[in-house]
Amino acid sequence: MREHPTRIVGFDPGLRKTGWGAIDVINNRLIFVGSGLITSEGKSDLATRLLQLHNGVMSVLQKYEPQEVAVEQTFVNKDATATLKLGHARAISLLAPAQLGLPVSEYAPNAVKKTVVGVGHADKKQVQTMVKMLLPKAYFDSEDAADALAIAICHAHQRGQKTYKIA
Amino acid sequence: MREHPTRIVGFDPGLRKTGWGAIDVINNRLIFVGSGLITSEGKSDLATRLLQLHNGVMSVLQKYEPQEVAVEQTFVNKDATATLKLGHARAISLLAPAQLGLPVSEYAPNAVKKTVVGVGHADKKQVQTMVKMLLPKAYFDSEDAADALAIAICHAHQRGQKTYKIA
Repeated sequence: MREHPTRIVGFDPGLRKTGWGAIDVINNRLIFVGSGLITSEGKSDLATRLLQLHNGVMSVLQKYEPQEVAVEQTFVNKDATATLKLGHARAISLLAPAQLGLPVSEYAPNAVKKTVVGVGHADKKQVQTMVKMLLPKAYFDSEDAADALAIAICHAHQRGQKTYKIA
Repeated sequence: MREHPTRIVGFDPGLRKTGWGAIDVINNRLIFVGSGLITSEGKSDLATRLLQLHNGVMSVLQKYEPQEVAVEQTFVNKDATATLKLGHARAISLLAPAQLGLPVSEYAPNAVKKTVVGVGHADKKQVQTMVKMLLPKAYFDSEDAADALAIAICHAHQRGQKTYKIA
């Protein structure tokens, strides 16, 4: 029996740039839908930058109409100012889908790497290689877009707890 | 000449509770309008809590229709997890007024205390006493609401760079 596809959008949040990636899950296959970057202007004040991110995240959600959303958890590092900035940006990727009534799942960076590459401490290059292997039609013009696709793939695996064939 | 009043809403952001305080500035007087708390449910997931805060902040802005908004800057402390949570909550108090096209000013906690009490390291009690002195009709049922009124008062002073008489 053919299932209806489930669309998942993943977000890799950041104040300067938030990556996004959309995939469809149909039966046990993953299909690339789109990916890209949402940016905010560094010279604008913080409230305006958050508004720019919110408009961008909302546009992606309204255009791609996912049923489920996945957002990367922020790595809490020793630079408190950077952590604070990430917290501001991340709130936008969580709020916008909640405003549309969409379920939002959160995944730690290491969980994403472990699901996609097989090891928790994979580097950016390994993640990108595996994203290309799992989604052969995928294109991404940035690390953040590739990471966002990896987050969406991670959610596809975690929600179904099954292994997907390469499409 | 009688000026039109300018309404200012101040926010003291927090994930569990965000304080708000509304004042009018007319000629060189400050008038208390309202204050309160916006809360989120600790048992809900983060996206839902941010949505609860966003709905609350939007309700205050739509009910009190300020011309200007002031938000306390987050104190970056050594507890990175707490800093991150505050960043998420604070993004909501910055985003909502920006969505309504309102100018948002940010003030450091010490700047608020210095403006309202006269010293940067005043305690909560001193801030509350001065808020009551500057806004005799003010009522507030929480520290956070009093702090939010102090933030609004700070903005009133900073924007006009003049001293207000006690109403």
